[in-house]
Amino acid sequence: MWWVLVAQVFGLTSVILVAVWMGHYRGGFAWQGDPTHQFNYHPLFMVIGMIFLYGDGLKAVFDSHNLKKKPDPNLYSLHSWVGLMTIIFFGFQWVAGFVTFLWPGLALRLKNIYKPIHVFWGILIYAFALAAAMMGIVEKALFSKDLKYNKFESEGILINFLGIFLLAFGGIVVYLVTN
Amino acid sequence: MWWVLVAQVFGLTSVILVAVWMGHYRGGFAWQGDPTHQFNYHPLFMVIGMIFLYGDGLKAVFDSHNLKKKPDPNLYSLHSWVGLMTIIFFGFQWVAGFVTFLWPGLALRLKNIYKPIHVFWGILIYAFALAAAMMGIVEKALFSKDLKYNKFESEGILINFLGIFLLAFGGIVVYLVTN
Ligand code: HEM
Ligand code: HEM
Ligand code: HEM
Ligand code: HEM
Ligand SMILES: O=C1O[C@@H]([C@H](O)CO)C(O)=C1O
Repeated sequence: MWWVLVAQVFGLTSVILVAVWMGHYRGGFAWQGDPTHQFNYHPLFMVIGMIFLYGDGLKAVFDSHNLKKKPDPNLYSLHSWVGLMTIIFFGFQWVAGFVTFLWPGLALRLKNIYKPIHVFWGILIYAFALAAAMMGIVEKALFSKDLKYNKFESEGILINFLGIFLLAFGGIVVYLVTN
Repeated sequence: MWWVLVAQVFGLTSVILVAVWMGHYRGGFAWQGDPTHQFNYHPLFMVIGMIFLYGDGLKAVFDSHNLKKKPDPNLYSLHSWVGLMTIIFFGFQWVAGFVTFLWPGLALRLKNIYKPIHVFWGILIYAFALAAAMMGIVEKALFSKDLKYNKFESEGILINFLGIFLLAFGGIVVYLVTN
């Protein structure tokens, strides 16, 4: 009811904020010719993808590392570990959900045993995605050499509001799912 | 039952990992004479404090900024905003819990209306503290100039495991509280 609307507004605000951050402050978007700006799709697609899809967002960041003249290493950070864990759990959840709920003739008893497990892990995976996103935001803020984060520049403030909206959005989603 | 034990082990592991990180890799602990090493109490006390107390942990980080020859700014980061929000909500929750549950003769009906609100916010505040801690870990990893985080040095690996244990610990705590 009420909260669904507030969640929509917060979720949409998060998408707009991350789009403005990457599109305006971080120099806009590009695909494979330009690894630095290809990176900028990663946060945008990942944040949208917490609602829609992951695929292109991951391609954006792996390409942005591997296609550089001097390639960057992959999967060294806590953010990337939690991010990958999230995606793997997400895959398991997806397969388990599909099999259990849609396999023709599976015993109703089994469906009923699995259901609370599905709901709990669904929420946990969502929380992991949120944690990954929050850490990714912090990384990008600190990796941006032309941003003096500790000088309260407008980009830094925008980053903080993005994080706060994303967290609030996540809180409301979990509230809605559990109530 | 089982999970309580696992949670204990993960929680304790987190405390040990953060203590080793700060005590061994980050040069150990000191109080007001030495702001850089005074900082090292902040993560340790904050992580312990997710179970015990905040006070000294916050003093450690504010001192570490303010007592420097060239003081660092306060409260510019997403981490610090989420951290402060957590502490403020924690304070409200504490007062509201105290008043509602312990005020002599408060109508039972009011207690019952407030109870699910208290439980929901309790869990949410806990999740906020976890998010703040995860972001703080990422910040500290990237602020440590003598750590090449993307070179898979042992300190970096320890940091990632700390984050994973903390997240797992948090997940189990929420599971226990909701089941
Ligand atoms: C749930 C959403 C997200 C997931 C699952 C995720 C996942 C990942 C993964 C797996 C990597 C490693 C890529 C590699 O090793 O080449 C990565 C890197 C990165 N991500 Fe994300 N990400 C998410 C959201 C975000 C957001 C919102 C930002 C914010 C700007 C961000 C910033 C970064 C940065 C700066 C890197 C490169 C440094 C590193 O490897 O940690 N991510 N992400
Ligand atoms: C990785 C992907 C998935 C996630 C994160 C996820 C998460 C969730 C969550 C959080 C709920 C609880 C919703 C609520 O109580 O309002 C739920 C319910 C449900 N999911 Fe999934 N799910 C996923 C994939 C699937 C798949 C692939 C199927 C089946 C094809 C499925 C079938 C269901 C069903 C039938 C329910 C309702 C259970 C009930 O009766 O309460 N889910 N899911
Ligand atoms: C729930 C636990 C935590 C809370 C509530 C919290 C809160 C805060 C607050 C309010 C500040 C701002 C201090 C100032 O402006 O002078 C701060 C700074 C800082 N914290 Fe934490 N903290 C927590 C856990 C951690 C952890 C586990 C680390 C990991 C190493 C960490 C690393 C930092 C760093 C590097 C700073 C200085 C940069 C900045 O202001 O963001 N924090 N913290
Ligand atoms: C900021 C501090 C607080 C937090 C984060 C917090 C959090 C929680 C949580 C998560 C629960 C649910 C536990 C469960 O269902 O097993 C709970 C239950 C409870 N809390 Fe708090 N709480 C706080 C302060 C207080 C205070 C100050 C009081 C009273 C003096 C209080 C009284 C209670 C009571 C009586 C319950 C049990 C409700 C029931 O019957 O299920 N809490 N609290
Ligand atoms: O800020 C960053 O941008 C990308 C990449 O460097 C762009 O080429 C990345 O991995 C960062 O840490």
